[in-house]
Amino acid sequence: MSILVVGSVAFDSVKTPYGEAEESIGGSAIYFSAAASFYTPVDIVAVVGRDFPRESLQFLSERHVDLSGLEVADGQTFRWAGEYEPNMNDRQTLDTQLNVFADFHPNLTDRHREQPFVFLANIDPELQGSVLHQTIHPKLIVCDTMDFWISGKREALLETLTKVDVLIINDSEARELVDDYNLARAANQILGLGPRAVVIKRGEHGATLITNGNYFSVPAFPVLTVIDPTGAGDSFAGGFVGYLAKSQDTSDTGLKNAMVHGSVMASFNVEDFSIRRLESLTQHEIDLRYERFIDMLTL
Amino acid sequence: MSILVVGSVAFDSVKTPYGEAEESIGGSAIYFSAAASFYTPVDIVAVVGRDFPRESLQFLSERHVDLSGLEVADGQTFRWAGEYEPNMNDRQTLDTQLNVFADFHPNLTDRHREQPFVFLANIDPELQGSVLHQTIHPKLIVCDTMDFWISGKREALLETLTKVDVLIINDSEARELVDDYNLARAANQILGLGPRAVVIKRGEHGATLITNGNYFSVPAFPVLTVIDPTGAGDSFAGGFVGYLAKSQDTSDTGLKNAMVHGSVMASFNVEDFSIRRLESLTQHEIDLRYERFIDMLTL
Repeated sequence: MSILVVGSVAFDSVKTPYGEAEESIGGSAIYFSAAASFYTPVDIVAVVGRDFPRESLQFLSERHVDLSGLEVADGQTFRWAGEYEPNMNDRQTLDTQLNVFADFHPNLTDRHREQPFVFLANIDPELQGSVLHQTIHPKLIVCDTMDFWISGKREALLETLTKVDVLIINDSEARELVDDYNLARAANQILGLGPRAVVIKRGEHGATLITNGNYFSVPAFPVLTVIDPTGAGDSFAGGFVGYLAKSQDTSDTGLKNAMVHGSVMASFNVEDFSIRRLESLTQHEIDLRYERFIDMLTL
Repeated sequence: MSILVVGSVAFDSVKTPYGEAEESIGGSAIYFSAAASFYTPVDIVAVVGRDFPRESLQFLSERHVDLSGLEVADGQTFRWAGEYEPNMNDRQTLDTQLNVFADFHPNLTDRHREQPFVFLANIDPELQGSVLHQTIHPKLIVCDTMDFWISGKREALLETLTKVDVLIINDSEARELVDDYNLARAANQILGLGPRAVVIKRGEHGATLITNGNYFSVPAFPVLTVIDPTGAGDSFAGGFVGYLAKSQDTSDTGLKNAMVHGSVMASFNVEDFSIRRLESLTQHEIDLRYERFIDMLTL
């Protein structure tokens, strides 16, 4: 089954201890699609400016990512610039120019509205709500968010959460969302807000799936040279939702397997700047790393 | 098979968001033994002052912990005071009084020297070296250390590491020991210093075992109310070495199983101040939590 993703497309300028990449392709919808496209077809709904080189997404089209929902608006594409600390976990945002993304209003076509799997990337929860309002009984809705919306658009976010099945969120944001330092307790509280599952991303320490009373953790795959962590969360989500849509197994067992696929895709993504690694990646490489990942989990 | 532990016995004064405990029994040798005693007999070598109420360790004697190596010296027992931040991960040391611990020189009896399993708790690496010098071909040597020794007694620590089989160390200290932010790479470098296995403790995020080319991670058991994290690392080590000594399986498979037992024991320890929870703990409770832990790991 295929997936609808609504999110951002951006030019990212990123500096890490390993070098820098100026104005390369980024954005949550792109990282997500590049990862999910290894599992199932994906429809992107997003906006770019007239400066965006559509041909740079040719590799996505070849992998059954439908770009007809990529609106081209008058103005410049969203730009983000950031620099990572030597530890690769902390980063500073140097510049944010929303540009055409500031007036983004996702309009779904009939085709988009009927997609069975929906990923709401990290955008304004009011827009996330508007997307859900336009969809027709999706089988599974997965949602991401961030501290900016937790503090700035709390009511809209809580409203959106009542309608999503799975929330993917990082550890510090989970704590902030329900104001509880204990992650296990925070996760249980988040389940009380609507989702039937929550995935807590712990960066280099992996991720934990929490459903009603059940916990399942995966480590991060030990990547010896992390070049650029940008997009790790979105490529995780791509592998996670991609697997669920392909397998059509949204049971707890399906969600657990999806955690492994998410971790595998994120581990590739951080091996190079921008989407370069996801662009060159092959199914065979994914299969090999998946096997190694399963070995890591086996007692 | 039984274990020799050499470490500290202390009075801890601890403040957490859940309350405080003044001058309660603590120290690495005590937390370790209290956990390991559920698996196998333990001999403690440590020092206390004349103010130490030996009867408070009665419960350990009843669990086959041999206290004949607990030297009583003229002076006061080692005292430590600390306060935890609301996040329960960061803590501030408010006071350290080494007292009799400052002149501690472990003297092993013939019985101690022949113990097949040795745990060198977090003490001066020169003392750790002296202990190893006195032992007679132990089957397995496991060692802990901390940032204080990494920066202050680096040469002695590196010398000790050439002789140990397993190093248990927390994530920030692993990075500091080999000056590498990437934990996977840091762990591989530590293996180059001597140990055949390293266990990286990640606090609330669990722990990872690294042997030659193999990684195995366990999450922290989701304790909903962490009352006092003091001693979590030593009770982890107690479950870890305790299981290895009991099973006599020091293969990679044995080490993986030991990781689960370590995590289970640490998860109980943090449920109350001092060693209270380990004191009241039953084998049945351990068995139940072990089963729940295995469920958490199962895909």
